[in-house]
Amino acid sequence: MANKRIVVIGGSAAGPKAASRARRLDENAQITLIQKSADLSMASCGYPYYVGGFFDDRDQLLCSPAGVVRDSRFFWNAKKIETMVRTEVVSVDTKRKEVSFVNLVTGEKGSLPYDKLIIATGAVPRKPPVPGVDLDGISTLQSMQDADFLRKVKDEGKIKKAVVVGGGLIGIETCEALHLAGIEITIVEMLPQLLTFLDLQMAKIVQNYVQTKANVILENGVSAFIGEDGKLKAVKLQNGTEIPCELAVIAIGVIPNVGLAREIGVNIGKTGGIIVDEHMQTNIEDVYAVGDCVEMKNLITGYPVHAPYGDLANLQGRVAGENAIMGNVKRFPGTIQTGICKVFDYGVGATGLSEQNAIRNGITNFETVFNASLDKPGFMQGNLLITKLVADKNSRKILGAQVIGPGDVSKQVAIWAMAIKGGLTVDEMVNADLPYAPPYSLAIDHSIATAHIMQNKLDGLLKSINALEFKERLDKGEKMLLLDVRNPDEFEAIRLGVGEVLIPLGQLRNRINELPADKDMPVVTWCKISLRGYEASIILKANGYKNVQVLEGGIMAWPFAREK
Amino acid sequence: MANKRIVVIGGSAAGPKAASRARRLDENAQITLIQKSADLSMASCGYPYYVGGFFDDRDQLLCSPAGVVRDSRFFWNAKKIETMVRTEVVSVDTKRKEVSFVNLVTGEKGSLPYDKLIIATGAVPRKPPVPGVDLDGISTLQSMQDADFLRKVKDEGKIKKAVVVGGGLIGIETCEALHLAGIEITIVEMLPQLLTFLDLQMAKIVQNYVQTKANVILENGVSAFIGEDGKLKAVKLQNGTEIPCELAVIAIGVIPNVGLAREIGVNIGKTGGIIVDEHMQTNIEDVYAVGDCVEMKNLITGYPVHAPYGDLANLQGRVAGENAIMGNVKRFPGTIQTGICKVFDYGVGATGLSEQNAIRNGITNFETVFNASLDKPGFMQGNLLITKLVADKNSRKILGAQVIGPGDVSKQVAIWAMAIKGGLTVDEMVNADLPYAPPYSLAIDHSIATAHIMQNKLDGLLKSINALEFKERLDKGEKMLLLDVRNPDEFEAIRLGVGEVLIPLGQLRNRINELPADKDMPVVTWCKISLRGYEASIILKANGYKNVQVLEGGIMAWPFAREK
Repeated sequence: MANKRIVVIGGSAAGPKAASRARRLDENAQITLIQKSADLSMASCGYPYYVGGFFDDRDQLLCSPAGVVRDSRFFWNAKKIETMVRTEVVSVDTKRKEVSFVNLVTGEKGSLPYDKLIIATGAVPRKPPVPGVDLDGISTLQSMQDADFLRKVKDEGKIKKAVVVGGGLIGIETCEALHLAGIEITIVEMLPQLLTFLDLQMAKIVQNYVQTKANVILENGVSAFIGEDGKLKAVKLQNGTEIPCELAVIAIGVIPNVGLAREIGVNIGKTGGIIVDEHMQTNIEDVYAVGDCVEMKNLITGYPVHAPYGDLANLQGRVAGENAIMGNVKRFPGTIQTGICKVFDYGVGATGLSEQNAIRNGITNFETVFNASLDKPGFMQGNLLITKLVADKNSRKILGAQVIGPGDVSKQVAIWAMAIKGGLTVDEMVNADLPYAPPYSLAIDHSIATAHIMQNKLDGLLKSINALEFKERLDKGEKMLLLDVRNPDEFEAIRLGVGEVLIPLGQLRNRINELPADKDMPVVTWCKISLRGYEASIILKANGYKNVQVLEGGIMAWPFAREK
Repeated sequence: MANKRIVVIGGSAAGPKAASRARRLDENAQITLIQKSADLSMASCGYPYYVGGFFDDRDQLLCSPAGVVRDSRFFWNAKKIETMVRTEVVSVDTKRKEVSFVNLVTGEKGSLPYDKLIIATGAVPRKPPVPGVDLDGISTLQSMQDADFLRKVKDEGKIKKAVVVGGGLIGIETCEALHLAGIEITIVEMLPQLLTFLDLQMAKIVQNYVQTKANVILENGVSAFIGEDGKLKAVKLQNGTEIPCELAVIAIGVIPNVGLAREIGVNIGKTGGIIVDEHMQTNIEDVYAVGDCVEMKNLITGYPVHAPYGDLANLQGRVAGENAIMGNVKRFPGTIQTGICKVFDYGVGATGLSEQNAIRNGITNFETVFNASLDKPGFMQGNLLITKLVADKNSRKILGAQVIGPGDVSKQVAIWAMAIKGGLTVDEMVNADLPYAPPYSLAIDHSIATAHIMQNKLDGLLKSINALEFKERLDKGEKMLLLDVRNPDEFEAIRLGVGEVLIPLGQLRNRINELPADKDMPVVTWCKISLRGYEASIILKANGYKNVQVLEGGIMAWPFAREK
């Protein structure tokens, strides 16, 4: 039998992974990787950290773990993979099984037969269709060239003001990078919140923190980039505001790069991504697709999503590379859209469904709770974590979790991602056997405590309200008894100031007669994190108050302005 | 109906948790907690960090998250729980449902009726039955008094040499604490390895690291403590060696404290712990038991184990407290014996079955692999993690994982603990959707890469050998081709020096004719972490070598002395 011929289009993450996996399964296959840009195997998720100065050696973005730049020579010598860089595939004859390409430097054309084709053409940055978008000083942070440009901006130190267009993951990462470069940043976001994988309350807490570092403008878009002599001078917003700046970075998302795939008859889904099956195969025989150009199944809703994450691209590449050699033996089932980003000293992560995303997908029979507590004991310098958990009311399965704060967010998100993968219920999570020692966690891990709160709520033991709902009722002027049950020194240091009464938990049983006699009056209790608030609610209920709710996450999860 | 009467014996972790949970479910119950020592709700897992000077305020070990010392007043005011400290329960009449106690200070006696009794009497330190064990200068690290004593040792700074008897978790934590106090430490362990929850190779790697901080003596026990004027002067070992020291800390494990339980007819298991069902109920009606005094089911083997961990004590307390009030509605299913400890800059953790533990339990149909790689990219200052994974060969389910190193061990162990809880197979783990961003992980998380290696091995793609097996064959003088495929500069910096040939992976295909012609000769390949070693093995196999194995974890997981 002749040696198998594998052609991979795209050399960033998924493509090289597919090619490498194919090689490991067949030393004799002819494997060719065609890449439009000059670089190969770029660690593109690392761009913001290069720009921000976490490291200075650009080559580290292109190196193997052993410190060798992954260039064409490396791919040939170490992996016997032929790479053609600065080369674009212009057409594919799927009948004859042949790709035609052009060298973008020399203009030379050629063609290459394949037995299996793997499309890994990635995604391209979305750009707002407004005047001036091509001015000097406007960039994205999507390519090695972008990273080089923005790093030069940092190193030269001339630019003082920049606008980041888009408050999503890349926008926020870019904001941190440019802030570390000493630049004053304004983030402009069309939607009413940053980071739409978070629910509103969580996003607001993150926003409060981001605003200590950068200006944030929500519900406003760019209407024009204003220039002088071809150079950016200001960003004009839809409400007419002009923000003077010498730099703008556009980070309003990416679009699957599927032009070639569409042309050759590959089916494209509603999300704009290539439709693939669990084997990463397209509708065309012997044509696979992987990475940011595909859509995949959300494993909770069952609906397709476009989830352009570097980790998934690699996992898909591994599956397609193996299937291209071995036949369709391996599967990539889909995603629960786990993500995380660093926002200065905060981690911000999520997995599974947010409340907003659940509703968008027609899922309404869920319960949510907040937990605010430390990641490890105070005596070990624990840091705050705030989690919002979403669970199905009937099956009691975990549907999603969002975790933010200066604490160890990445472990928490990993725990919830694994809980969802295992199909665990809240009642299984309450007894999870996680690694405990004071340098690493509380005796009851934050995730388990979150499950406890959810179990209490599902069991009807905890009646609670989140800050958004509470604020709405406050704003309506609803008559409520508002009870902060912390100690006076805590109250002096920080408090909501919404008309609350202070009765420390330890005095509540003896001072219950100070409360209004009307046992039907709505009561909301809280403390710093609402554990004491919960205990207070139980005391009040035992004393006949019928309508007591605990403010979830207490003062630590309060996203609005406070009196103190 | 009269108010329910709950009596809890024991006030460290599980007892107060049970009492608090009971209170939250019934504001009117009469809840009494009887505690032999003076303190309540001590964060006993924090003792080593207090001794080591991670923090200075002793009260932090006794405080609620809001910073209030959990004394009798706190328990009464905040939780309406009556506490009787320095009080010992001397007998229980399980027919009349009454406990008899004596106040250890005043000698006053009394009795108390109960509807539900919860035994949380904890465990006591094991002590070696050797002469001199009561000398001044010999301590354990089990009680608040021990912690006070050892912290005084640190603060006074007089003691220069100490022996830690026992190389388990507490011994190692004590070693770190005393080292930080400026004391020269010798650890003495009876067994051939430290930290027996690890397999030998992993333990040896940890030992190599510990030996940069302390002396380690294995396979030797204490035969006597030698004193002068009642004060410790030296520890005499079973082989006759005398180690001069002014302090010895005994950390050879704990024994469930079940004297009272046994006397009143509660069934005790083979492990020495109280037998309880999933509701945490003993064989005697209305008598529950929780925490370090009970045995519980290992959820993988099905056999009972004694697992004295603070986190499990709390989870059990919550279940027993609820069941005491509500009837047996909640379950604690058991443990997978997840544990972690800090060893200076290393984390050392495990969950599920080790290879040794599997074999001890009659489980032999498993596969193991090692993975050594970073926790996050090198450009983000990633740190090394070494994982040993154990999986069932037939079902391909994850059975256990051990993780060590300066990297983020706690997240890795949590991931594997959740994988085991979810009953996941290796084939499910390979596509886990974990949070990825460069500040937190590699694009393919260390845990997923470990699953990839295991899948390759189970699928027959990877033939590998671990360092112990390899060393055994080397020591026997077996004729093998030994192939290091790193670059020359790496080879110059560090190498095994076991007779290996260096051929960089990138040159291997062209230099294959330099290798011995005998294709049946056993070959072992490696690199720094054995990813390139794996690729080399594939090239060799494709070139006809029939007996090629990869050294698992490469040089980074090599536990023996190296040439360089």
